Amino acid sequence: SHFSAQCWRQVEHLHSLQGVGCAKEPVCGRRRCTGCIRDNWDVEEFVSKVCMGRFLTHPAFKITLAALIIGNVLIIASRTEMEVEEKYYGLFSAIDNVVLTVLTCEVLLNWYYGFQLYWKDGWNVVNFFIVACLCVGPFIPVLNNQKIFWALRVMRLMQVCTLVKGLARMIRVILQSIPDMANIMALLFVIMLVFSVFGVTLFGNLVPMYFGNLGAALYSLFICLTQDGWINIYETFEEEGITMKIGGALYFFIFITGGAFICTNLLVAVVTSNL
Amino acid sequence: SHFSAQCWRQVEHLHSLQGVGCAKEPVCGRRRCTGCIRDNWDVEEFVSKVCMGRFLTHPAFKITLAALIIGNVLIIASRTEMEVEEKYYGLFSAIDNVVLTVLTCEVLLNWYYGFQLYWKDGWNVVNFFIVACLCVGPFIPVLNNQKIFWALRVMRLMQVCTLVKGLARMIRVILQSIPDMANIMALLFVIMLVFSVFGVTLFGNLVPMYFGNLGAALYSLFICLTQDGWINIYETFEEEGITMKIGGALYFFIFITGGAFICTNLLVAVVTSNL
Amino acid sequence: SHFSAQCWRQVEHLHSLQGVGCAKEPVCGRRRCTGCIRDNWDVEEFVSKVCMGRFLTHPAFKITLAALIIGNVLIIASRTEMEVEEKYYGLFSAIDNVVLTVLTCEVLLNWYYGFQLYWKDGWNVVNFFIVACLCVGPFIPVLNNQKIFWALRVMRLMQVCTLVKGLARMIRVILQSIPDMANIMALLFVIMLVFSVFGVTLFGNLVPMYFGNLGAALYSLFICLTQDGWINIYETFEEEGITMKIGGALYFFIFITGGAFICTNLLVAVVTSNL
Amino acid sequence: SHFSAQCWRQVEHLHSLQGVGCAKEPVCGRRRCTGCIRDNWDVEEFVSKVCMGRFLTHPAFKITLAALIIGNVLIIASRTEMEVEEKYYGLFSAIDNVVLTVLTCEVLLNWYYGFQLYWKDGWNVVNFFIVACLCVGPFIPVLNNQKIFWALRVMRLMQVCTLVKGLARMIRVILQSIPDMANIMALLFVIMLVFSVFGVTLFGNLVPMYFGNLGAALYSLFICLTQDGWINIYETFEEEGITMKIGGALYFFIFITGGAFICTNLLVAVVTSNL
Repeated sequence: SHFSAQCWRQVEHLHSLQGVGCAKEPVCGRRRCTGCIRDNWDVEEFVSKVCMGRFLTHPAFKITLAALIIGNVLIIASRTEMEVEEKYYGLFSAIDNVVLTVLTCEVLLNWYYGFQLYWKDGWNVVNFFIVACLCVGPFIPVLNNQKIFWALRVMRLMQVCTLVKGLARMIRVILQSIPDMANIMALLFVIMLVFSVFGVTLFGNLVPMYFGNLGAALYSLFICLTQDGWINIYETFEEEGITMKIGGALYFFIFITGGAFICTNLLVAVVTSNL
Repeated sequence: SHFSAQCWRQVEHLHSLQGVGCAKEPVCGRRRCTGCIRDNWDVEEFVSKVCMGRFLTHPAFKITLAALIIGNVLIIASRTEMEVEEKYYGLFSAIDNVVLTVLTCEVLLNWYYGFQLYWKDGWNVVNFFIVACLCVGPFIPVLNNQKIFWALRVMRLMQVCTLVKGLARMIRVILQSIPDMANIMALLFVIMLVFSVFGVTLFGNLVPMYFGNLGAALYSLFICLTQDGWINIYETFEEEGITMKIGGALYFFIFITGGAFICTNLLVAVVTSNL
Repeated sequence: SHFSAQCWRQVEHLHSLQGVGCAKEPVCGRRRCTGCIRDNWDVEEFVSKVCMGRFLTHPAFKITLAALIIGNVLIIASRTEMEVEEKYYGLFSAIDNVVLTVLTCEVLLNWYYGFQLYWKDGWNVVNFFIVACLCVGPFIPVLNNQKIFWALRVMRLMQVCTLVKGLARMIRVILQSIPDMANIMALLFVIMLVFSVFGVTLFGNLVPMYFGNLGAALYSLFICLTQDGWINIYETFEEEGITMKIGGALYFFIFITGGAFICTNLLVAVVTSNL
Repeated sequence: SHFSAQCWRQVEHLHSLQGVGCAKEPVCGRRRCTGCIRDNWDVEEFVSKVCMGRFLTHPAFKITLAALIIGNVLIIASRTEMEVEEKYYGLFSAIDNVVLTVLTCEVLLNWYYGFQLYWKDGWNVVNFFIVACLCVGPFIPVLNNQKIFWALRVMRLMQVCTLVKGLARMIRVILQSIPDMANIMALLFVIMLVFSVFGVTLFGNLVPMYFGNLGAALYSLFICLTQDGWINIYETFEEEGITMKIGGALYFFIFITGGAFICTNLLVAVVTSNL
């Protein structure tokens, strides 16, 4: 009996999380556990895993990692200036390597703590993808542009945001709103498709610049959606005579009023109801 | 007794939907039904209708139809490119004819299942209108431009959206918001009318380009409503002297603040309350 | 006893509305009323007033009046076209006179029904103001421009909107939101004043076009508020050197983010809570 | 016993506010108070403080002060016009000095009433900062531009707004929304950072004007956020060939849809929930 009941509970919690689940009662007697943990090596492994779990979830570790990532992002931000980049190239590369090593270690430690557990968190999947790209990428000749990997490193910053309570709430609201927003986007795309086919059919011959084919029509409608520059498009219509003028006015009025206003408002309403 | 009680129930359900309603109890005995269904022919018709109902509401049928429509839309989208259209004109026309045949069959089958039932769903009315236009249209000389019918086919895509649960909810929200939105639009139109008559009265002589008559004034106010390009209009006012400058500033400030902000916000509020 | 108890109730209702209130019980006996209505003349006056009330609140009267006003608005709308105006000047003037006569009669009839009652409804006050302007205006030499009176007639259209139930609800929401919106506008004006004094102080010498004095600065900030054309203003800053560039960026960023976003959102929130 | 029990209560209230708190019961006898207030001088001081408190919280005093500040703001507003400033320079300077004296007196009187109490109100801290700057500023050679102090005076106007009930409510809503809005802004900044690093990486070489370094990229993204002028940026992309055209379209579409719409809507939702 060389470790406490509390530590046992954590070991068993780990067991149950990993799906082993041999111990039914929270505090088990010595007799049951002999059937569960065969030898001392297993015991030591569990103890080390418990310690690892404590280490990985410790605030100090998280804050250190966050500081490292933020520092790395600041360095990347300054590297986009050509002069700074050339002057301190060696230093920056070294720091990049250090940060990459730390991130790789974090992934390996998390795997050691619980391989199946690791993949249940969406952020971990993103992390692994980033680290894998950063490690494997430089050896692929097509991706020899180092700048692409900067963007990946900066993406790690998103996870750091979840450490701050208020930001985590906002991210949760955004993630919760994604299904509804995807629906609205799909609906908006269908509406835009219908309108663009109408546009190509009706105005394709006279205004080929904006409604020549489906791609141009979709782009024109997206401009109407952001309500910036639709006047330039409409002016082309006005030059084509009175029929086009009235037709274009009706077309744009219906789309701007219907499409833009409704869908923008639906987005507001969905986010409000998810807050 | 050559069909089961369960099938009977469906036949009776069909009866009650069609307004025949001769069977009062859900499970009727043989004696009552002899008074209701006169001969074998009727029985066979009911059985075929029940099978038809099962066929028309079967997910596989709906998904096949949706896939056909989406495929047709994709082909129409690619036909807007002149080169692709010319190269595969024969193939595309054949596919169009096949899709039209399927859509016509669907309408006829739905009529066979229940003619009165068919017209109670708004989507069916739209479908019939589309199919009728597609069938009759080519024989009318005025509408010999084939492109017009493309737009009608794409409109069928809207109904496909209702098969996805999330999209159906958004469409329901939009349809529920339409009465309120129509009210806001009407109110907005009245406000714009009042302002445009004011505008023509006050600025008609000096700024004929934007406030020459009622139509131009309404267009100028719609530009203010989208808050894109109102500066260009105001600059014309500034050139006309200090009186016009101050008058125009007051006029635009009141309309943009009052009309644009309030009505945009009312739309948001209405959609939010309907979600 | 030559009129029914029902009619008596209306007479008494009229009494109580006019503040006479001599009849305490809803159905009074003959003895009490002799103390209240002295002679036959009074009785006849009350009966005529009751009939007048029924006439003025009858749907047919309201719809006729609304149709007349809408027709008048349509005529005024077509009069803004110079050619149409010149051709049918006589007809239009005659119709204008007829409508004015009807509106004046409506005011006089309402006064006869209850003079004190009339002024308790805000719409009536607006109506009286419009009719008074239309009657007196042409005799004042300064206001001999007939077009000014068109705008007044169109304003009557606002009241017609209250006859439709859905529009009346929207107008009620807007009227209820006015106090809150006035507060937001006042707050926004104070914020703009603070920012414009800052702007004149900091950028007045270098960018006199947009921040030369307080009026120009307020106009520039209103442009930022509508988020249309602020880039043109900022480009002037960029030409003035790196200090102005950074200072202007901070200034515009704070104002656009703070002023525009917050206050626009406050408006939405206020209208939503009033719906 | 030369002052009433009511006045005693106020004195004790003052005590408890100042943290002295010697009197436990609301109405104390003479015997207890002898142990609390040692001599007549203390009594007189307390009486004068009570009168001061009544004076400082009196509506008339507040309204006078508000009128003085508003008047001062109006004068500052007219001083931004060069001609008016030169003509009445002496008068305006005198009024400025009078207002500054009054503001200084108000701070000193508030200190006399309760020094510790004064710093517990955030508005008082802002007031002291403004008055201190106005008093000390002119003697610092670097800040010898008088216009800077105008802006400080106008900032006092914000506090005057809290005297009006409706404005105070709006200011409270804004202040309550600040933490959430700061979170959204931080999140938005992180998203913009990620996108700008992506932008510099992908488009830095071909479109150096808008994505040359991190600062330029952040500015371009802020333009996209306000949805005014993003078309100009995208047109530069279109000139660089088909790859850039498609890449830029995807990049801008994702950022405008995701960043701009979501975050704008989150702001609305946050303010709505705080109202």
